Amino acid sequence: MSSELRKDPFSDGWIIVSPERSKKPTDFIQKTQELQNSGKKCPFCPGNEDETSVEIRSVGRPQNGSKSEWDLRVVANRFPALKIENSLVLKNLNRVHNQIGGVGAHEVIIESTKHDGELWSFSDEERYKILEVYRERVEDLYRDKRFVYVQIFRNFGEIAGASLVHPHSQLIAVPTIPKRAMEEIKASKHFWETYNNCLFCEKIYENKKINERIICETKNFIALEPFASRFPFETWVLPKNHSSNFSEIKSKDLAELSKILGETLTMLKNALNNPPYNLVIHTSPNSLHTKYENIENFFHWHIEIIPRLSSIAGFEWGTGFYINPVSPEEAAKFLLNSLVRN
Amino acid sequence: MSSELRKDPFSDGWIIVSPERSKKPTDFIQKTQELQNSGKKCPFCPGNEDETSVEIRSVGRPQNGSKSEWDLRVVANRFPALKIENSLVLKNLNRVHNQIGGVGAHEVIIESTKHDGELWSFSDEERYKILEVYRERVEDLYRDKRFVYVQIFRNFGEIAGASLVHPHSQLIAVPTIPKRAMEEIKASKHFWETYNNCLFCEKIYENKKINERIICETKNFIALEPFASRFPFETWVLPKNHSSNFSEIKSKDLAELSKILGETLTMLKNALNNPPYNLVIHTSPNSLHTKYENIENFFHWHIEIIPRLSSIAGFEWGTGFYINPVSPEEAAKFLLNSLVRN
Repeated sequence: MSSELRKDPFSDGWIIVSPERSKKPTDFIQKTQELQNSGKKCPFCPGNEDETSVEIRSVGRPQNGSKSEWDLRVVANRFPALKIENSLVLKNLNRVHNQIGGVGAHEVIIESTKHDGELWSFSDEERYKILEVYRERVEDLYRDKRFVYVQIFRNFGEIAGASLVHPHSQLIAVPTIPKRAMEEIKASKHFWETYNNCLFCEKIYENKKINERIICETKNFIALEPFASRFPFETWVLPKNHSSNFSEIKSKDLAELSKILGETLTMLKNALNNPPYNLVIHTSPNSLHTKYENIENFFHWHIEIIPRLSSIAGFEWGTGFYINPVSPEEAAKFLLNSLVRN
Repeated sequence: MSSELRKDPFSDGWIIVSPERSKKPTDFIQKTQELQNSGKKCPFCPGNEDETSVEIRSVGRPQNGSKSEWDLRVVANRFPALKIENSLVLKNLNRVHNQIGGVGAHEVIIESTKHDGELWSFSDEERYKILEVYRERVEDLYRDKRFVYVQIFRNFGEIAGASLVHPHSQLIAVPTIPKRAMEEIKASKHFWETYNNCLFCEKIYENKKINERIICETKNFIALEPFASRFPFETWVLPKNHSSNFSEIKSKDLAELSKILGETLTMLKNALNNPPYNLVIHTSPNSLHTKYENIENFFHWHIEIIPRLSSIAGFEWGTGFYINPVSPEEAAKFLLNSLVRN
């Protein structure tokens, strides 16, 4: 195919799909990397609980169990980007410079006792427990009126920003609606007002209609390569039934999500040889705060997985355009074929 | 200082300035790296002109000179993200999927015959010639109505996306106003309508008033670390006198720009040991196109330099927030002190 520009329906951005710049999807298969092993003791392994900051939650610790008996722990980040005790005061230093105290929460979810595990390698039940803790933490933090948005994210691999190998995810609660969330909210609000339908639901419908870009599907969930993928093999997982708030997900659906997420990550892992990636959950902001009426009608929570295979350079920083050398159609085919190969 | 959130006045974004996550600016000093030398012959060195694509412009070639006599060349990118011959037709595939043919231009500016040179190491006269070609290319491409915006950018170092060592910059002409340009235009339009002043001019004024975050100044230009810097040591160079269109810069000012740009890059190079960086020029869109009346009053062209010292991880992708571990005040002090040290 010749290169083309695709409009990102969730923002004001455009994507350049430019397959001519790269030869084939196989160019993105990663070299096998040894696990980083710094020789230092891992602060997330059982027995090293004193190396972590305050424990916020644990799962699987028996009553009267020792502190090193657990399946999963949530701890405060030792180097928090934001802190609960900071104050939420807007200072207008002048007409161009405005600041707020760095109020927020920054937590680490230690997903397992298995140092060498990964989100794809866990059993559906183990992954379910992790997702259950995500749900619980968002629900809990949204009780604090100051936290307008909770971003759950997972960095896998050094290139993707992970400084520790032991499987973990993080969350940061922030006192304003983040830019990217705001863009998605505005775009889906506009679409809803124009067409009286959810932008995300319609996106799922359009992909299913022509059965393109879909890599995995269950009764209630779908995993696909978005039409305007910013990155090679960018993958989204969405509930098929409209739902705006991830923390309201039912346990039955959470079990199904665990399954499709495991399958999706396994496909990426097999096809691209364990690529570094970022995973983020986009959900609706704290309802104690949001001024968007009817947001439950037009916003649709989802998971975005971004394999870190290409670098972001001056053009992308300068413009907000992304150049994607692999079309999502080709990426989906390659992922599906890898199922056959493995 | 404790962490704080700063509003980016040029977009809807926020920056978390979080100095507690890093110890000190010296943590960002780069390890000395050998120049990449793949053993292949450099396609940008004199004598290898056949290795490059179509020559669009050359500087310094004598009349009847051979093709390898030049000071500077502009060539088409061999793997163009966009192409002039593609067609500019908007296709609405459905209500969520829209595309345009990949029409545009993608050029490489080979800045010098010196394989081991760098933008900071060139003489003011050599750098002047490069800036002069930037000006000329923007002016020329803006004669084509299809090109709504020209992004000039420079990637230095592998981490910053440069695949070749030989000093070069690039430009891409695109058929829509890019997201980041649009954000700056909208924000500065809003500021102008509210306060009857240019947002950028006011930013310069506020920094000068308290003499903070400024790292370099000449009669008509200023280099500073923006209040809401997204990245450690993010540096902007701006004309002090209001001007919206880079390609209208007078030659006298271009000479002064060459000087301050050289000094600024030398400071970054000395302080951080030759860091990888991206440089972008933000100018106003093609006036044959823009629907913004009075844009010459409220938009202000400038150069953004982004040293690539920290990685972008899930939180940043998920939210559009940036976590900057070095405050711009501290960064400016460190850069100024490095002048004393060197």
